[in-house]
Amino acid sequence: MSVVKLEECREQIRTELDNVVDFWLKYSHDTVHGGFFTCIGRDGKVYDELKYVWLQGRQVWMYCRLYRTMDRFRKPEILEAAKAGGAFLRKFARVSSGGSGPWKCAFCLTRDGKAVKIQRTIFSECFYIMAMDELSRVTGDKDILPIPTLSHIYSDCLASMMQQLIYWVREDSSDLGRPQLSGDVPTNSMAVPMMLLCLVQQLSEGRGQEVVQKYRELGSWCVQQTLQHIQRDGTAILENVSLEGAELPGCQGRLQNPGHALEAGWFLLQFSAERGDEELQRTAIEKFVELPYQYGWDKEHGGLFYFLDVDGHCPTQLEWSMKLWWPHCEALIAFLMAYSQTKRPELLERFSQVYEYIFSHFPDAKSGEWFGYLTQEGKVALDFKGGPFKGFFHVPRCLYMCERILDDLLTNKD
Amino acid sequence: MSVVKLEECREQIRTELDNVVDFWLKYSHDTVHGGFFTCIGRDGKVYDELKYVWLQGRQVWMYCRLYRTMDRFRKPEILEAAKAGGAFLRKFARVSSGGSGPWKCAFCLTRDGKAVKIQRTIFSECFYIMAMDELSRVTGDKDILPIPTLSHIYSDCLASMMQQLIYWVREDSSDLGRPQLSGDVPTNSMAVPMMLLCLVQQLSEGRGQEVVQKYRELGSWCVQQTLQHIQRDGTAILENVSLEGAELPGCQGRLQNPGHALEAGWFLLQFSAERGDEELQRTAIEKFVELPYQYGWDKEHGGLFYFLDVDGHCPTQLEWSMKLWWPHCEALIAFLMAYSQTKRPELLERFSQVYEYIFSHFPDAKSGEWFGYLTQEGKVALDFKGGPFKGFFHVPRCLYMCERILDDLLTNKD
Repeated sequence: MSVVKLEECREQIRTELDNVVDFWLKYSHDTVHGGFFTCIGRDGKVYDELKYVWLQGRQVWMYCRLYRTMDRFRKPEILEAAKAGGAFLRKFARVSSGGSGPWKCAFCLTRDGKAVKIQRTIFSECFYIMAMDELSRVTGDKDILPIPTLSHIYSDCLASMMQQLIYWVREDSSDLGRPQLSGDVPTNSMAVPMMLLCLVQQLSEGRGQEVVQKYRELGSWCVQQTLQHIQRDGTAILENVSLEGAELPGCQGRLQNPGHALEAGWFLLQFSAERGDEELQRTAIEKFVELPYQYGWDKEHGGLFYFLDVDGHCPTQLEWSMKLWWPHCEALIAFLMAYSQTKRPELLERFSQVYEYIFSHFPDAKSGEWFGYLTQEGKVALDFKGGPFKGFFHVPRCLYMCERILDDLLTNKD
Repeated sequence: MSVVKLEECREQIRTELDNVVDFWLKYSHDTVHGGFFTCIGRDGKVYDELKYVWLQGRQVWMYCRLYRTMDRFRKPEILEAAKAGGAFLRKFARVSSGGSGPWKCAFCLTRDGKAVKIQRTIFSECFYIMAMDELSRVTGDKDILPIPTLSHIYSDCLASMMQQLIYWVREDSSDLGRPQLSGDVPTNSMAVPMMLLCLVQQLSEGRGQEVVQKYRELGSWCVQQTLQHIQRDGTAILENVSLEGAELPGCQGRLQNPGHALEAGWFLLQFSAERGDEELQRTAIEKFVELPYQYGWDKEHGGLFYFLDVDGHCPTQLEWSMKLWWPHCEALIAFLMAYSQTKRPELLERFSQVYEYIFSHFPDAKSGEWFGYLTQEGKVALDFKGGPFKGFFHVPRCLYMCERILDDLLTNKD
């Protein structure tokens, strides 16, 4: 792939990011009750007023990240939207689980902020913390959110939520509300260490030695937990393993999610770069970037399968063969980051292949933004732009990450 | 459709039922730990040893029903399998929910009966009761299961489980374990009155006046609750309505599941026949049989969609456009029953259309049994014969019901 071609990519990615930001600025803001609509139809029309907390948190985070790190997005309307989203979350997302137990974040709220559902997992809390930390980095307005210092009340509150999360993950999850059942073997599900690693990076970035030190061991633990998913003598990444890192029986144990492995891949690559860990870099590229592509890419129709079974059984997930937008977003970031760190041309070739698949399938030329769900053959299966799990996150994060990496590559080109 | 054609149908259905029973007798029995494997691959191989309680209960019920009502299935191996399944369920399915609360049934067990998961719904309990009631009708062995009289200890136990269910549905569901949230509006989900109606018919059939009387009001209540799902001036069946029978906002309120409506259709037709209620028969046929077919049939590729949105939005369920085996099973029963009660030729035409779709798409000529999950275009998307939600139930129940109705039609033909 030539420099000219890379510059074309950067241009397309840049334009696409502008368009995607415009789409969500235009259609997703609830100016009456605050927060963001996330169920947005093909043409921008809200088809359900429910507000999914993962997506509220992710949108606040993404707006703030764009505002803080890219000059062209340092606009008052983006800051105001992020603050309004943060205020909505602070006001409504945290729900008492009853009794003297800790606070939980709801999974889903009504338009006016009433809790509809609480999941028995940690992810709503994670996206809440991610949002609030990033928001605290862009606003100095003490009445809205305090300045980012750990000694301050608000950051204390986030830090204590983080401690709660760590306790749930590493000590005792019974507060999450799942009954303890003798057949329910404790599992290391890759989503959990990945999510915590993401939070460690979020909370540590640019912070003082005290904070960095505080989360250093947790970061290493997350990496080790993630590496436990390398199974079958290094030939497969499995989504769920035992707490001791052994393969679990049945479908759960054999499950593969190539897009998720690729996402873990670029998390690990970021981490290895920060710590200058070359062995981790090699492992990340070989096992979490190249390997999932090898088993996850559909040789017949192109694109990444959503789920696979490592022994070739048919997965029980009805959507296993569908092509979802987000695994392709993660693959694009992973290959470009791997290339930028190594300059190995075959990684750029893979980036190019994923890029071609994405831009010939996902963007909606008519109404903007991307379709999220294609059939195995690449036909649009669900045509909405936002839904319970698709918001202002994977698409803009992918475009944002790739634009930055490309900026770097094209500025420092040999 | 001619009498000759109907006789051909009956012959094919009869043969297919024999084959399906043979498949499960051959591949699903766990002779070591008892109970049934339900995750069975295309060629009969067990690909996961988990035992799903819905499917354990349904298999016991189906074996017993075949044993009790069809001479050619009155075979010791079927009775023994049913008893063994019942024993496994009695031993392992009921799990204390902790504290002084009532017993719940697990949703999923390990091969040796340890609880893996408990759902916060009533369906595991329903299938448990259904299984045990039918089992109690075929076995006089008091050491295994007592004879069916309400005064007897075991039936007392089933009756008290049934009372518990009714309490959860009609009085207070907080024991099920869902936190009470202000945005979580109580909903009449069609599955609940349908399931209870099915249980009322199960428990009442052929029983004394005392039992029939006991469940009479509940049966009428279930019918009324089901009829509340007729919405939009009678032009749509919606899956979820408010407790007052009003349409709910958003995707949940607009959701349609044509196969489920068709299943409700033949439940209502059975009920109307038992009570001699002609108005209910008309409503059942017009609203729950003909209407779901009209909006649910895919004019382009044939087959019934799994989910639809009454306003034509794209459903958020990833599998909305897939063609599943069970809605087609329910449609086949519903049209044949509606025809048998009315002799209206257009209902037989619809039966014939569904029949053609089924027999040209679902049965696996190579290894027997039916595929469960097709793409919108009718290609096999998941090739297993049994999975977490597909067991020995919808296919044999459909074939069993249709064979009996055809026997009736062909014996009493004009």
